[in-house]
Amino acid sequence: MAAEAIQQSAPGAPRVIVAGATGFAGALAAELLWRHPDFELAAITGRSEQGTRLDELYPRYRVPLEIEQLELDALGQLDAAVVAYPHAAAAPTVAALRERGVRVVDLSADFRLRSRPTYEQWYGEHTRPALLSEAVYGLTELHRAQIAGAGLVANPGCYPTASLLALAPLARAGLIADVVIDAKQGISGAGRAFDDTTHLSMAGENILSYKVAEHRHTPEIEEQLALLGTDVRVQFQAHLVPLDQGELASCYVTPTRTVSASELAERFEQAYGEEPFVEVADAPPGTREVYATNFCRLFAASDGHTGKLVILSAIDNLWKGTSSQAVQNLNLMFGLDEARGLA
Amino acid sequence: MAAEAIQQSAPGAPRVIVAGATGFAGALAAELLWRHPDFELAAITGRSEQGTRLDELYPRYRVPLEIEQLELDALGQLDAAVVAYPHAAAAPTVAALRERGVRVVDLSADFRLRSRPTYEQWYGEHTRPALLSEAVYGLTELHRAQIAGAGLVANPGCYPTASLLALAPLARAGLIADVVIDAKQGISGAGRAFDDTTHLSMAGENILSYKVAEHRHTPEIEEQLALLGTDVRVQFQAHLVPLDQGELASCYVTPTRTVSASELAERFEQAYGEEPFVEVADAPPGTREVYATNFCRLFAASDGHTGKLVILSAIDNLWKGTSSQAVQNLNLMFGLDEARGLA
Amino acid sequence: MAAEAIQQSAPGAPRVIVAGATGFAGALAAELLWRHPDFELAAITGRSEQGTRLDELYPRYRVPLEIEQLELDALGQLDAAVVAYPHAAAAPTVAALRERGVRVVDLSADFRLRSRPTYEQWYGEHTRPALLSEAVYGLTELHRAQIAGAGLVANPGCYPTASLLALAPLARAGLIADVVIDAKQGISGAGRAFDDTTHLSMAGENILSYKVAEHRHTPEIEEQLALLGTDVRVQFQAHLVPLDQGELASCYVTPTRTVSASELAERFEQAYGEEPFVEVADAPPGTREVYATNFCRLFAASDGHTGKLVILSAIDNLWKGTSSQAVQNLNLMFGLDEARGLA
Amino acid sequence: MAAEAIQQSAPGAPRVIVAGATGFAGALAAELLWRHPDFELAAITGRSEQGTRLDELYPRYRVPLEIEQLELDALGQLDAAVVAYPHAAAAPTVAALRERGVRVVDLSADFRLRSRPTYEQWYGEHTRPALLSEAVYGLTELHRAQIAGAGLVANPGCYPTASLLALAPLARAGLIADVVIDAKQGISGAGRAFDDTTHLSMAGENILSYKVAEHRHTPEIEEQLALLGTDVRVQFQAHLVPLDQGELASCYVTPTRTVSASELAERFEQAYGEEPFVEVADAPPGTREVYATNFCRLFAASDGHTGKLVILSAIDNLWKGTSSQAVQNLNLMFGLDEARGLA
Repeated sequence: MAAEAIQQSAPGAPRVIVAGATGFAGALAAELLWRHPDFELAAITGRSEQGTRLDELYPRYRVPLEIEQLELDALGQLDAAVVAYPHAAAAPTVAALRERGVRVVDLSADFRLRSRPTYEQWYGEHTRPALLSEAVYGLTELHRAQIAGAGLVANPGCYPTASLLALAPLARAGLIADVVIDAKQGISGAGRAFDDTTHLSMAGENILSYKVAEHRHTPEIEEQLALLGTDVRVQFQAHLVPLDQGELASCYVTPTRTVSASELAERFEQAYGEEPFVEVADAPPGTREVYATNFCRLFAASDGHTGKLVILSAIDNLWKGTSSQAVQNLNLMFGLDEARGLA
Repeated sequence: MAAEAIQQSAPGAPRVIVAGATGFAGALAAELLWRHPDFELAAITGRSEQGTRLDELYPRYRVPLEIEQLELDALGQLDAAVVAYPHAAAAPTVAALRERGVRVVDLSADFRLRSRPTYEQWYGEHTRPALLSEAVYGLTELHRAQIAGAGLVANPGCYPTASLLALAPLARAGLIADVVIDAKQGISGAGRAFDDTTHLSMAGENILSYKVAEHRHTPEIEEQLALLGTDVRVQFQAHLVPLDQGELASCYVTPTRTVSASELAERFEQAYGEEPFVEVADAPPGTREVYATNFCRLFAASDGHTGKLVILSAIDNLWKGTSSQAVQNLNLMFGLDEARGLA
Repeated sequence: MAAEAIQQSAPGAPRVIVAGATGFAGALAAELLWRHPDFELAAITGRSEQGTRLDELYPRYRVPLEIEQLELDALGQLDAAVVAYPHAAAAPTVAALRERGVRVVDLSADFRLRSRPTYEQWYGEHTRPALLSEAVYGLTELHRAQIAGAGLVANPGCYPTASLLALAPLARAGLIADVVIDAKQGISGAGRAFDDTTHLSMAGENILSYKVAEHRHTPEIEEQLALLGTDVRVQFQAHLVPLDQGELASCYVTPTRTVSASELAERFEQAYGEEPFVEVADAPPGTREVYATNFCRLFAASDGHTGKLVILSAIDNLWKGTSSQAVQNLNLMFGLDEARGLA
Repeated sequence: MAAEAIQQSAPGAPRVIVAGATGFAGALAAELLWRHPDFELAAITGRSEQGTRLDELYPRYRVPLEIEQLELDALGQLDAAVVAYPHAAAAPTVAALRERGVRVVDLSADFRLRSRPTYEQWYGEHTRPALLSEAVYGLTELHRAQIAGAGLVANPGCYPTASLLALAPLARAGLIADVVIDAKQGISGAGRAFDDTTHLSMAGENILSYKVAEHRHTPEIEEQLALLGTDVRVQFQAHLVPLDQGELASCYVTPTRTVSASELAERFEQAYGEEPFVEVADAPPGTREVYATNFCRLFAASDGHTGKLVILSAIDNLWKGTSSQAVQNLNLMFGLDEARGLA
């Protein structure tokens, strides 16, 4: 015996599904919702592996539900959905759910950008552009109020999550003249793809940058910085390093004016002093410190030699970078404490 | 039986010692010289572990010699030495060797900087400043001619090696207005120190930046760039990632003018087309590709969105970054093909 | 802000200390008790690092308490203690706690063996032998009833935990004629020792057996098997493999008579069908499946070719193998659901 | 520039091809033959990736040849071939090569077993059974003389290589009454397959046994032990652990009579004292010590408590376990020093 097959959620809890539970992001979202005291995980669906139990596909997780085909009519009353489909594939499902009044957190890039032309430059034609204006960008710490009332939340990418939490206090103050973001991430960031970048015999003992000078996450970061009042072209570069879950964004900011260490500390304290999931650390944070948590841990330094600001931002790419932030947002959407089920 | 206890070097080969063979750098230098067809490894010394055979201390290496105390008078005629002592500890030994006419490759920072005040700012008082002017900076590709005739070669740090090979073609052409170097390195870079940064249970599943906005390697890089005609304050940041040997320096250059992709390619081809150990790659290089080799593999891109140049530079921090570059330099100092014993 | 500095335990909860919280086992025990809803973590002590907060020493944990010197008189009313001292060092502290009526779970080997001569053969003189008869062996699934009423619980070693859970159903039935246990464990099993076996550059890319034909855990396993009715000399061999937390004991049993697959399945179902933390799996379990959990996952097969039985047992050596089992036992000792704080 | 596109082999050197160079084993065989001073690597072939250069497919290797389709008629005069095809796929190609008089080292299982029924029980129908009697089992240390004159050498599996080198001295002396072999291997042993067992996010932080009580390598080991005079049913179990290259076979022998430590040492010294690639170590060998070498490192102990013998055998599964042993055999087949190109 062991893993209890009956979820211990509160009676009358909102019924949630995870669509696309076979990938890393969807599977973790399912696990978090299964353990959540105030949501009922009504179903998990997938386009493959139907009939397989999630705890067989991912034995480290404890969800005893079978993966089903997504048939909205058969699912009964639904209150919410986490959609974990690839980019472009998500939009039609999100639209179908919204038509039924189901509140959605979408993990894809389909509704993250406000600008349709920018989206289409990177991802091809947008099949449900009408929903773009409804979507709220789900970086909780930046858009908490709108998320609470949203029908559709576009969960940020993991790179924008780490980067924007690092840069927001500076962007708001108009302090960013130029910025380089060098991000490093564990192999789970490549998803369940099986290839040269994920095989341990190739990803192990390796450091590899990818998509040099062409990364899709740049517009998402730039658009959000612009909303904070800073128009800047962001130099972003991603790297894969041999671990599973963990992401560090090292941000090098050329400030618009000299910023002292004490001003820097004050701005970060002011921005995040009350945040439940953002920690301003006294030392450079290792990603291990936030492994399997919803925390973002930040460290900010002013470099007297160059005049630049160095901001380090550590998250777990699968948690705060993806699935636990989705639950944080769901909590807000249903009037719960945003830490519910995550601490 | 197995590891042959008699070295197969040519008769009359120069006699070399490795002083400080108990650390990672010295042990590898000893291994490379033991296997080298044209040097005789006369002795290996250490301040600890005396009487221990190197192949017991490092079973992966095959040097059957015992670690001895360094007593120059007892060693007979010596032609060369690789000194692998910590910073500041190296200078007196280097001086004693030079007094006896022994040619030295020093792996420490003691003779890398031409400026004594800069050295003393970072490392404390210099006990043998008279030797500073004699020392040649041992980045082979930049100073080949002087190395060939040198009595004292100051082997570069691994970070400057990767960084300067990436930046030299641009620095020479006066193209660097500003530069950020984000370097990632395996745990061997922390040396044989046993602590929180090297314990697998803490270094594993981690990405950690260290010495934020205060790295000692910056002056070394800046001084060499200045010799190439570029005065610039370098933003350098180091990170540890969970692998053994490997280093990637990601360099983000704001150019003084627009640089096209074709100009960039041409400059790198021109700089390195004939170099035996520098490869200009068609794709971003993984450090795994240069594991346990003396190669540096470079990739250069011009980012149309930001106008910046992105140069990626992969080396093995213990090999090209330290010990095999020392052998490359020794080869030149003794009139041998610089690839001898390294291919 | 972030990690809440005030523990959320129930009013009137038993007050517990962790003595020896600087090592891996004690630190995790502190973390588990800090998060536990029904215990109050009254203090954490250590013989080094006094004045350091545990969340500085182990940033991945969230305990904001400072490590103190252990002074029993200054700690006020205590109900229980987890003692995480090295072997031999634990006994005097355990005795002092017991004299004050504090209930103890001891993580060392000091009270695991009933036979004082066997203890002294492996660990030297026992300084508090009078307590040997009081101690209950804390393998929860084997001694649940006695643990509930115990004043002193000797928490098992991680190897005996995995091995005995694998072998108990067979030992009870008198089915073991001979047994070989080949155990593999992650580097956390070597503890916070900093040396050749834990440095990532030596432990990485390695498989290493240690203490060949002389392992201390053998008598502990043999004594417990004897209590179950099986007298056998156990061939036990430990190995370190390059991961952090995880342990697999592969047990090869020569049975006293032929055991069919169905009998084997039935015996394991019967033994563990109602156990909350033992899972009998349908496929060989990876240790990753029980990472950071109190679960033991078992797989049993009968080999038609050799007639032997192969039992695989996966645990997290730091959790079920050490600290979470200590909490499981504490729960029982204080009349709580044994899964409290662990699910 | 860099990797020299012209191989430096001796004039008139035997011309060798590698058939199936896209997998791990074939690619390494190609690399070793490319660097070999006394063979000419005439071509590398593959059933996929045709037209791709091997140094693009495996950038860590330095072979600048393109992968071709295998067309024997187009290849000109050939002296030898290494065939690195999957089991069953190899036999027809081996036969075609033998018909042309090409000497073959076959890395598959197709010709390892002398008994056709045993082969067919595990692998299905044998399509070229006539060649079974011609084939020589390529464990160099056991069959050196026959290998030297062989037209077809069946290279052993990596598990049998490690296991048989551990057991041969005992088997020859009739000392094995019973044996359990618990083998652990890095992920490269799973080959270039992309799946749950090789993805770093699943293989990392994991220990996983596979094919419990049904491993195909058992008959190969048993057949060779029988040739040495020992008929025994072998309990063999394989495990995957999170590293790239490395294999440790832990062998637990119940001896037919008491074997003292000194007899054990003498038997191993006698068996391997003159072997160039087998080392009898004074301490349990880590696989890291033989990484990327053709060495097997052995350690033997007699357990006074149980009376059993524990033999530990460490190899690099891709090198001595596969490709470098193939080159060792090729050297013998062409009258070269067996260490040529491997030291």
